[in-house]
Amino acid sequence: MPELRRDPIVGRWVIIATERARRPSDLQKCPPPQQPSLCPFCAGHEDKTPREVYVSGRPPSQPPNSPGWKVRVVPNRFPALKIEGELDRQAEGIYDRMNGIGAHEVIIETPDHGRALKDLSVAELTEVLFAFKARVLDLRNDMRFRYILLFKNHGHLAGASLDHSHSQLIALPVVPRQVIEEIEGARRHYELKERCIFCDVVGQERRDRSRLIHENDEFVVFAPYAPRSPFETWIVPKRHESNFEAEPKERLGLLAEALGTTARRLAAALGDPAYNFIIHSNPVRDASSPSYHWHVEIMPALSQVAGFEWGSGFHINPVPPEEAAEFLRKVAG
Amino acid sequence: MPELRRDPIVGRWVIIATERARRPSDLQKCPPPQQPSLCPFCAGHEDKTPREVYVSGRPPSQPPNSPGWKVRVVPNRFPALKIEGELDRQAEGIYDRMNGIGAHEVIIETPDHGRALKDLSVAELTEVLFAFKARVLDLRNDMRFRYILLFKNHGHLAGASLDHSHSQLIALPVVPRQVIEEIEGARRHYELKERCIFCDVVGQERRDRSRLIHENDEFVVFAPYAPRSPFETWIVPKRHESNFEAEPKERLGLLAEALGTTARRLAAALGDPAYNFIIHSNPVRDASSPSYHWHVEIMPALSQVAGFEWGSGFHINPVPPEEAAEFLRKVAG
Repeated sequence: MPELRRDPIVGRWVIIATERARRPSDLQKCPPPQQPSLCPFCAGHEDKTPREVYVSGRPPSQPPNSPGWKVRVVPNRFPALKIEGELDRQAEGIYDRMNGIGAHEVIIETPDHGRALKDLSVAELTEVLFAFKARVLDLRNDMRFRYILLFKNHGHLAGASLDHSHSQLIALPVVPRQVIEEIEGARRHYELKERCIFCDVVGQERRDRSRLIHENDEFVVFAPYAPRSPFETWIVPKRHESNFEAEPKERLGLLAEALGTTARRLAAALGDPAYNFIIHSNPVRDASSPSYHWHVEIMPALSQVAGFEWGSGFHINPVPPEEAAEFLRKVAG
Repeated sequence: MPELRRDPIVGRWVIIATERARRPSDLQKCPPPQQPSLCPFCAGHEDKTPREVYVSGRPPSQPPNSPGWKVRVVPNRFPALKIEGELDRQAEGIYDRMNGIGAHEVIIETPDHGRALKDLSVAELTEVLFAFKARVLDLRNDMRFRYILLFKNHGHLAGASLDHSHSQLIALPVVPRQVIEEIEGARRHYELKERCIFCDVVGQERRDRSRLIHENDEFVVFAPYAPRSPFETWIVPKRHESNFEAEPKERLGLLAEALGTTARRLAAALGDPAYNFIIHSNPVRDASSPSYHWHVEIMPALSQVAGFEWGSGFHINPVPPEEAAEFLRKVAG
């Protein structure tokens, strides 16, 4: 059973997930490229994954876990957290621990091994985002979960252990510190101004335009003012909404357009870099919030986190966001 | 001029350090091994670095910036922050910026290209630590600086751009969030218990022994209860002291013994891994604190920070600290 342990000084939780060390790639650095014939995410290899918890595109006449799907969601075979059991919060002297209860799922974005997220059509990517929403709506019924994080690791340098295009979801029994900091920062701004800070940011970026990369009717794509890494890019809905899972399918279609365009521009500008994206949303059981605003953060894996970053929480970024945005505006999306 | 920019939501500062992008290795992944004949840190190449700000071991009869030294400290040739100028705090609409004022120095630990930190004798390593202390005592006289972070990046995967053994120092005009969190966490514990949390941790680790790796008269080396990465290791003074620079030279000798032993054990256990270490100490102009306790954190670069870690601040660690400590106790130090 994985374990959640709390650092007694700063209160940071870590997941001690011993089952993941079974993956030989875990403490290695450069696994060889993977052959589609061995890939568990390819169509026809449905028996190589745990049984699906969501599928789209397969005709209802076909049996589950058979080919013919467009998007498929399965439990992670090497989960960081386990779905069965109770939290069992305990003290160990001055320390705190609980069982590593949670969900860890994989969203397989396409049946085709050779296509990355940037190669998917708006319609295909909309199906992926709709799968994200469907899984969040299902998992938030489990009262043990306080937060659901959707994220993607693309490329080995960004932590992906399989080449086949996929995203991941982790449902957690605690709200992560990173999210609490955003929620509290946004609440302080709201108390002072009675405005959402993200709405203010969107307003300034659309007026200023120097960090703007792309926009459509519902979403704006820009390099944030204080980016942690070169070419960090955010996608933020123009209309205020705190919870990703509250978005209707039409707006997910426009998010798909913005996300696909951004992925293609990053690939064109930087030579298909490894990258991570995460969706930050309000905790799933909290009511809609006037101060918090869900968004996507995309981080190309171009710089290493070294001692200074570890020790300070400060990031050193050699590329000003105005230059990154200008570069990304010029390439084809 | 580098720039400090503040994220308006969570208040995180980043350094936009455009001059560092001149280093061709910055956005690359694997530079070739470096030849001693071209190394700016080797004895005889003193003219390839900025002029030294500290030296030990060279006879006073010899001129500055000539060979014959044991430890040499020079300004970083590609500094993240600049020493000259004023902070000039400004608003940019809803955003905050200031000039990137600070010091960025390199501590060259040995004149010999072929020797890593783990190869240095206790006497040599004591000279390195004494240089750390001397630079902190000098720089804290500059009233613009609120924090001085000492750290080391060993190996390319840990962010080192030069092979020759060196550490770094960055003096900052703000106290980093990571340090504020530790100071505030420790203060909350002190308010509740009137005890230092680090002293409590040292006490529990020495009684429990399952995470203990090494100890001498003054320092204890252990795997922390909630480690962010596999084989994360802390070195903590047994006696309460908030400020690293307050330690007398005898105790730095025992720190050198603990640090050298730990570096050799990590190298033996993990095949000379890349690693970072950082020294967390009380802000330099704060009086000695009963609640905060300086210490060293060592992080081997064995796992990647991926989307989940970026997005949540949670870390997934596949190696329990009890197993890591057992492994490190068994190998030769």
